[in-house]
Amino acid sequence: MIDRLLAAAAAFALASPAAAQEAPSAPPSPGEIVDAAPAADWVAIAPSDLLVMDLAPDAAGKSRRVVIQLMPAPFSQGWIGNIRKLAATHWWDGTSINRVQDNYVVQWGDATEKKPLPDGLMAVPESAYLSERQRGTTTWLPSANGTYAPHHGVLAGWPVAWNADAAWPVHCYGMVGVGRSLSPDTGSGAELYTVIGHAPRHLDRNIALVGRVIGGIEHLSSLPRGTGALGFYEEDAQRVPIAAIRIASELPASAQPRFEYLSTESASFAKYADARANRRDPFFIRPAGGADICNIPVPVRPVAAK
Amino acid sequence: MIDRLLAAAAAFALASPAAAQEAPSAPPSPGEIVDAAPAADWVAIAPSDLLVMDLAPDAAGKSRRVVIQLMPAPFSQGWIGNIRKLAATHWWDGTSINRVQDNYVVQWGDATEKKPLPDGLMAVPESAYLSERQRGTTTWLPSANGTYAPHHGVLAGWPVAWNADAAWPVHCYGMVGVGRSLSPDTGSGAELYTVIGHAPRHLDRNIALVGRVIGGIEHLSSLPRGTGALGFYEEDAQRVPIAAIRIASELPASAQPRFEYLSTESASFAKYADARANRRDPFFIRPAGGADICNIPVPVRPVAAK
Repeated sequence: MIDRLLAAAAAFALASPAAAQEAPSAPPSPGEIVDAAPAADWVAIAPSDLLVMDLAPDAAGKSRRVVIQLMPAPFSQGWIGNIRKLAATHWWDGTSINRVQDNYVVQWGDATEKKPLPDGLMAVPESAYLSERQRGTTTWLPSANGTYAPHHGVLAGWPVAWNADAAWPVHCYGMVGVGRSLSPDTGSGAELYTVIGHAPRHLDRNIALVGRVIGGIEHLSSLPRGTGALGFYEEDAQRVPIAAIRIASELPASAQPRFEYLSTESASFAKYADARANRRDPFFIRPAGGADICNIPVPVRPVAAK
Repeated sequence: MIDRLLAAAAAFALASPAAAQEAPSAPPSPGEIVDAAPAADWVAIAPSDLLVMDLAPDAAGKSRRVVIQLMPAPFSQGWIGNIRKLAATHWWDGTSINRVQDNYVVQWGDATEKKPLPDGLMAVPESAYLSERQRGTTTWLPSANGTYAPHHGVLAGWPVAWNADAAWPVHCYGMVGVGRSLSPDTGSGAELYTVIGHAPRHLDRNIALVGRVIGGIEHLSSLPRGTGALGFYEEDAQRVPIAAIRIASELPASAQPRFEYLSTESASFAKYADARANRRDPFFIRPAGGADICNIPVPVRPVAAK
């Protein structure tokens, strides 16, 4: 029996790709479906919709780049206008990562809370947390859970929830939102956070989401947790400096990161979403028969620079 | 307007405790409800149910202790018997953290996959992934989502799901499970993992859960992500050594960590769960009206050693 257990240990990996190779006739895993998607199913993300955050190099001198995809209309456009202005004026350069709360968020901005903001930022009203429901343009994911909203799906590559009146983006892992104070129309876009734990869906419709991390999230999620209240760092030396934040289209062409996402209107995405909800690859013995919206992340991949 | 935005930045914190202080008549936050729970609502966790994992000190020489609460009957007892035997024989001493996959799991055990296991470990059958439904002893959380099971609740302090026939523990952040190979009855308990991202509920009933991290999870969740397939480390030097894993009751009394959890049968827990599902503290403008089971974590706190 020891030998059998040893063999088990040797072969163990959660949903190992090797498993599928051993059983060539097995149903494909979600990852294999994505890998097999034709080039036409992938949508290039415009460099003008990418926010590039370069952190100070790590202790070994290695560069740390985080890439955030900004949300398209109709969502959060007031804040995204502010974010574009903050990036254009280089406002974030020299600010820092100030908060890392385990199973919750990483937050960045001005730790001194005294740096003047550029002129012309908007104060965005609470109504902008929602958008009129976009009928006919949303891919339903009917198996996604209804605890937080009657419906969930993906709209042009983004996870959304909706009811009879409105649609809104949801707080999945890696989503980026705008810190605010008690009043809902506060929050300029200068203080941003990303989710690094279980989806805090209670924040939906209470804080504005403006994008998602699509590259380098490990440079945020693996940072030491802050020991102050709410995971704020207590000492200057703990805060990782932000060297620069730019819109990618403002970088030299050779330095622009390029990404594409799997069209959520494609047959490949439908097959992928179904496979996420019903795992039939060989590791699984009981497919769940459903998946919550945050367990069907929209596939995004880097592509070589032109 | 700049001043107003500055003030917003200064005051910002997601659901800040300061907010409640400013509005003394405001409904309490979930944390405030837990803090106000009477001593009688807290249940001591037996040291014999705590697995203590001491990692090698970090680069600054600081100790790193992770404490895992093992699951009580009726769940997973075959594996937990194996885990007790592995700890008693010091089998894990000198093994390592081998895998850190972002938004998924941290996994530990023998990286060489050749270390002989102690005699007498059980091969646990697939049927042990479930348990006969425990009627009358489960606290319902009727608002918890039904995507992955018709019912969710807490049973003696643990998040569980159930249907007409069976109950099973669920993969929330910090839950600890048993790695296995393709066959469901593999997996000795020697290879363990914990969840460090969005709840991978598709693993429920497909892998055995045996406990949860209740202390020091940041020593696992903030580790550098592995760059190999599935987040496995590719070089020996990347693997954090495990100095020792022991059942707490086998440690000297003065070195035994002590924890207690908020009784899930208590009025305090009911109030806390309701507040998690309906955030009425001042930061929130739209309470969700529900929460998924993993967004109602059972409160656990360390207590001073006797």
